Amino acid sequence: MTTQTKTQKNPSFVLKAPNEIIYEDRPVPELPSPYDVIVKPRWTGICGSDVHYWVEGRIGHFVVEKPMVLGHESAGIVHAVGDKVSTLKVGDRVAMEPGVPCRRCVRCKEGKYNLCPDMRFAATPPFDGTLARYYALPEDYCYKLPEGMTLEEGALIEPTAVTVHITRQAGVKPGDSVVVFGAGPVGLLCCAVAKAYGATKIVTVDINDERLQFALKYAATTSFKSARVSAEENAKNMIKECELGPGADIIIDASGAEPCIQTAIHALRMGGTYVQGGMGKPDINFPIMAMCTKELNVKGSFRYGSGDYQTAVDLVATKRISVNELITNKVKFDDAENAFKDVKAGKGIKILIEGPEE
Amino acid sequence: MTTQTKTQKNPSFVLKAPNEIIYEDRPVPELPSPYDVIVKPRWTGICGSDVHYWVEGRIGHFVVEKPMVLGHESAGIVHAVGDKVSTLKVGDRVAMEPGVPCRRCVRCKEGKYNLCPDMRFAATPPFDGTLARYYALPEDYCYKLPEGMTLEEGALIEPTAVTVHITRQAGVKPGDSVVVFGAGPVGLLCCAVAKAYGATKIVTVDINDERLQFALKYAATTSFKSARVSAEENAKNMIKECELGPGADIIIDASGAEPCIQTAIHALRMGGTYVQGGMGKPDINFPIMAMCTKELNVKGSFRYGSGDYQTAVDLVATKRISVNELITNKVKFDDAENAFKDVKAGKGIKILIEGPEE
Amino acid sequence: MTTQTKTQKNPSFVLKAPNEIIYEDRPVPELPSPYDVIVKPRWTGICGSDVHYWVEGRIGHFVVEKPMVLGHESAGIVHAVGDKVSTLKVGDRVAMEPGVPCRRCVRCKEGKYNLCPDMRFAATPPFDGTLARYYALPEDYCYKLPEGMTLEEGALIEPTAVTVHITRQAGVKPGDSVVVFGAGPVGLLCCAVAKAYGATKIVTVDINDERLQFALKYAATTSFKSARVSAEENAKNMIKECELGPGADIIIDASGAEPCIQTAIHALRMGGTYVQGGMGKPDINFPIMAMCTKELNVKGSFRYGSGDYQTAVDLVATKRISVNELITNKVKFDDAENAFKDVKAGKGIKILIEGPEE
Amino acid sequence: MTTQTKTQKNPSFVLKAPNEIIYEDRPVPELPSPYDVIVKPRWTGICGSDVHYWVEGRIGHFVVEKPMVLGHESAGIVHAVGDKVSTLKVGDRVAMEPGVPCRRCVRCKEGKYNLCPDMRFAATPPFDGTLARYYALPEDYCYKLPEGMTLEEGALIEPTAVTVHITRQAGVKPGDSVVVFGAGPVGLLCCAVAKAYGATKIVTVDINDERLQFALKYAATTSFKSARVSAEENAKNMIKECELGPGADIIIDASGAEPCIQTAIHALRMGGTYVQGGMGKPDINFPIMAMCTKELNVKGSFRYGSGDYQTAVDLVATKRISVNELITNKVKFDDAENAFKDVKAGKGIKILIEGPEE
Repeated sequence: MTTQTKTQKNPSFVLKAPNEIIYEDRPVPELPSPYDVIVKPRWTGICGSDVHYWVEGRIGHFVVEKPMVLGHESAGIVHAVGDKVSTLKVGDRVAMEPGVPCRRCVRCKEGKYNLCPDMRFAATPPFDGTLARYYALPEDYCYKLPEGMTLEEGALIEPTAVTVHITRQAGVKPGDSVVVFGAGPVGLLCCAVAKAYGATKIVTVDINDERLQFALKYAATTSFKSARVSAEENAKNMIKECELGPGADIIIDASGAEPCIQTAIHALRMGGTYVQGGMGKPDINFPIMAMCTKELNVKGSFRYGSGDYQTAVDLVATKRISVNELITNKVKFDDAENAFKDVKAGKGIKILIEGPEE
Repeated sequence: MTTQTKTQKNPSFVLKAPNEIIYEDRPVPELPSPYDVIVKPRWTGICGSDVHYWVEGRIGHFVVEKPMVLGHESAGIVHAVGDKVSTLKVGDRVAMEPGVPCRRCVRCKEGKYNLCPDMRFAATPPFDGTLARYYALPEDYCYKLPEGMTLEEGALIEPTAVTVHITRQAGVKPGDSVVVFGAGPVGLLCCAVAKAYGATKIVTVDINDERLQFALKYAATTSFKSARVSAEENAKNMIKECELGPGADIIIDASGAEPCIQTAIHALRMGGTYVQGGMGKPDINFPIMAMCTKELNVKGSFRYGSGDYQTAVDLVATKRISVNELITNKVKFDDAENAFKDVKAGKGIKILIEGPEE
Repeated sequence: MTTQTKTQKNPSFVLKAPNEIIYEDRPVPELPSPYDVIVKPRWTGICGSDVHYWVEGRIGHFVVEKPMVLGHESAGIVHAVGDKVSTLKVGDRVAMEPGVPCRRCVRCKEGKYNLCPDMRFAATPPFDGTLARYYALPEDYCYKLPEGMTLEEGALIEPTAVTVHITRQAGVKPGDSVVVFGAGPVGLLCCAVAKAYGATKIVTVDINDERLQFALKYAATTSFKSARVSAEENAKNMIKECELGPGADIIIDASGAEPCIQTAIHALRMGGTYVQGGMGKPDINFPIMAMCTKELNVKGSFRYGSGDYQTAVDLVATKRISVNELITNKVKFDDAENAFKDVKAGKGIKILIEGPEE
Repeated sequence: MTTQTKTQKNPSFVLKAPNEIIYEDRPVPELPSPYDVIVKPRWTGICGSDVHYWVEGRIGHFVVEKPMVLGHESAGIVHAVGDKVSTLKVGDRVAMEPGVPCRRCVRCKEGKYNLCPDMRFAATPPFDGTLARYYALPEDYCYKLPEGMTLEEGALIEPTAVTVHITRQAGVKPGDSVVVFGAGPVGLLCCAVAKAYGATKIVTVDINDERLQFALKYAATTSFKSARVSAEENAKNMIKECELGPGADIIIDASGAEPCIQTAIHALRMGGTYVQGGMGKPDINFPIMAMCTKELNVKGSFRYGSGDYQTAVDLVATKRISVNELITNKVKFDDAENAFKDVKAGKGIKILIEGPEE
């Protein structure tokens, strides 16, 4: 297979059907407009959604109906630039924001482009992803990596931007107490970004001791292990053990698990804020009256929008958050399928796939 | 009974035990501090919560453990003023805000006194309500009625303030489309206040045709009758019939009903806002992932806070909303129990009880 | 001249040099992109800035260096539509938003496109304006006029949008007291829009009695005539006469005059908001310490941004504001120069120029 | 003098008249209410305003009309507690917030108690300050010092809270570029707090090289020395030298100097924010049209309000900002007048006065 992808012009890691991956030689993309660039992705992280498409062929109403290149957490090297590109040149190293909105709808124009109904998002059907030799995107969706930032760190900008967006939705500010349910990649980054935004107390919650230990070492200030008790009791215990006073200021769910969400609502203080950052069952049993009488702010968080990618680059560049310890494995392009298997099996935190050799 | 309450010094309408009302002669209150006034409540509306305490003896963890005067939607006439009172004098007609916070906690000092854990709220145990000849409260929780506003209108300021708070939580602004589930007193006032805040399209939703008709005549621009179909289908039908484009900007639930809440979440546009304004079951099945991926803002609304009462007075005084047509009956103090029975039976929209005769 | 413009393919009202207007036959525009439309402007209002360019040839660093078509307050009829246009068809009547941003910069993507440094704005050099037979602009900068709204009203959407933006910058909400300095077209519309946003007290301030009378009849609730006294004294008098209590909640300057700005700062309450909506001298003597210790919010307002044009259309369409009484004269295309002379002479409130005859 | 103050019951450092200090034995305060405590101030910093009252006898309309105890930047030890005090006990070490509002006015109830017109502020006439053996204040205006924080650091909480308030007014968030004019105590703390709030680039501006060096070592990332050129030119040079791209996101003035304020307005990007944090001339020449067309947010900042003191304690306690290096001298109570002379002469950054010996 190595030989094959080497001889291909634009070798691409393609989901042909659920559980069926092939390496295809896709046409080399041309510049779609003078404002665009062609990037050669060098490192690509695997996201839970990539694995989900691979296994199930769909996420909600997004269905893979024709072969689709996977991958969307990438950083790479600029290969070609359009005539009107002024801030990038060939050879520049960039983090690649994988979703490009229509720029014309009400949501785009009000500054919430992540809510654009005509978003073209890499590896969300029907749009191809970044696990290929070449990928075209607009200049303004590429973020130059500052000197000293590696391309591997650049690939981690995507999940970091996800958590910057969650943290902004949560309105974290200095002095806040923040509880994060789930100590996977997104939960861990939420802890780190909340700290960078000034949170004083950061509680990581999980059911796995090893993950809690990692989170404490990485960014959290306190940990809490969820028990098999009622949500109210779990909340009460957490508030007491973690010294959250009248309840937490902010709770972020990065687990998607029903008992976590319920516990979170009960563990917030009057007027606190809850952000749903993890995906799970579409409908759950929800303590709506506790939400009402405590006058909570409950918010969704979807991908990332205006300024999030740049903030993520800044946070990593200035060492206010660190992403290297989240990278638990790096594999060659031709081993990408095995990496997917590892992620599916829950191995490691973040696995990176190298771009195809030339 | 008439004779009796006339000879009493401070006749009071007291809930002795669930379903047991008595008229008691309570001690005449003295001024608690030089910043307080004594008001003689002249008209008091009956709220669903009053009836709930009467029937059940409790609401959630608020339990009536000793006899409690009922009533909290009142306007009256100033009877005595403390030494440091500077803006009120004996004889002034005032709307009476029934909840007084501690003024010292973090929530009070950050401008959200409705979330004060030490709130003293009329007719919420253990605090007595306003259905008595005299009621003491601080000067700054009395709102002078402008010339031309009646004391009956003054009694309606309380539910109006509830809906001003809901509308502010919802962030209604000119041009918005607003859907209000439930066409009872709170739902109706939500329609009227949303209009005053500039909403262009106001959809009233109920299962009762008569109520929908009233709402349309009163303040809504469109009506929708909920059907016994799935929440998604109900939402789809409503969006289509009511021409809500990509979904409603804002949805307020003033019903507390599970199917309404579910429909609301599905009927909002990307980035829309939902406010829970009605009380119902503590836990419901909730479309959390639709909330997440549409990045909705879901908020509780609890009573009223900074500025809401004054805004309610302004809206009624300047005729931007009208409350008189909501008053469907007025009864004497000695007939108060019958009025409670009527409200329990769902008769009328808002019934007012007159203060005791002298 | 009439004959001439009739025979021209795209007759255009062109500022050749300061004080030198010619009618030129400009090339008929082609669709710049499949997302664009060609509109035939039917009515165009004259703005102070048009007159300023005509007289001075520049505004600040915007200098007319080559002949430029004037006009930017227009409504017209769709003449041609691009392939990807989906919401408009030939014959539709539209209000034309005259400034199109780059859609790619940080400001555009954060929802503040009016601050885009690469804005292409009609009749701001070097971009041509709308006083021509044809004008090309993107579909999403055209706003369909609802049935019942005239094209003349459509032309007034531009100044209305200016004042919607000012009012949003000011954060006007129900119950606020709002003072507006200047009773010209922008000041008058500020009064009307502030009312639509719920302001309870609206004070119009001017030095001309006739204008004050008109403002009172049109939208203000109170008037104040500025006197030749110190700003502090003027402010004190206004607060007293207009019963503004501790000072006004919000003050908008639509005059650009130094004494007005100074008076405004002194007349605001603690924590009040000031918005600069009028153009005047670049530097003025400003009471910075009053601003500081009252912790005022002082804001600029520049053109209009996300949602403003649509809100302006909604406000006029739903009769919450009325613009017809501001139209004091309507002239033919061939009389446009006389209309400019009238505006320069301060005649009337708003003069409209009809599009060229065919 | 030492002997004298030792034998006094409540020795107090009193401004009798401009430039005339005496040590008086004031009555020992009793608890004003059961919610109050008596604190023995242990360390008190000297503020520019203390010196100003000493030299001039007034600041603006605040005039010292009778002898007044000076001092308001204090931390001390709880000496007595009222009956209803529940969170403090005798012996607790506390930072003392020196301004207590009325808790009843509109500003207090909307969460902006620093704008309360009936504020009682230590050492602002006619209210006595904290340079005495005893000082009474409400429980909720005392902030317990966490273990490991010294009383000297506690005294620095006051200026830190001032800058927390400025930084919140400025809306500093991760990634922002922030310019701070003036490298005195407030300017230095602004740099440190802005950093704690996530600012990526922090430019300190002053005319004194030594101060710039200190600021760079302390918290700033870049420095700029103002030159005697026009404000526009100064701004242009700063933007270029400090690589501020389209201009700074946020500029804080902690100098009060006219040329600084002018430069700041010209150096902000479109839509940027300016906060006036320093006191100076009441009126200055101000580039109002640049403010308008760049749509800047210009704000005052006055003292501190809801949450600021607690945030300041948190920032110091968690070592996110450090205040010890700002303390350049510590003197005994009986040497307080010399300390005032040193501050007047511009010696050192922050001088602390110890509380009277017993």
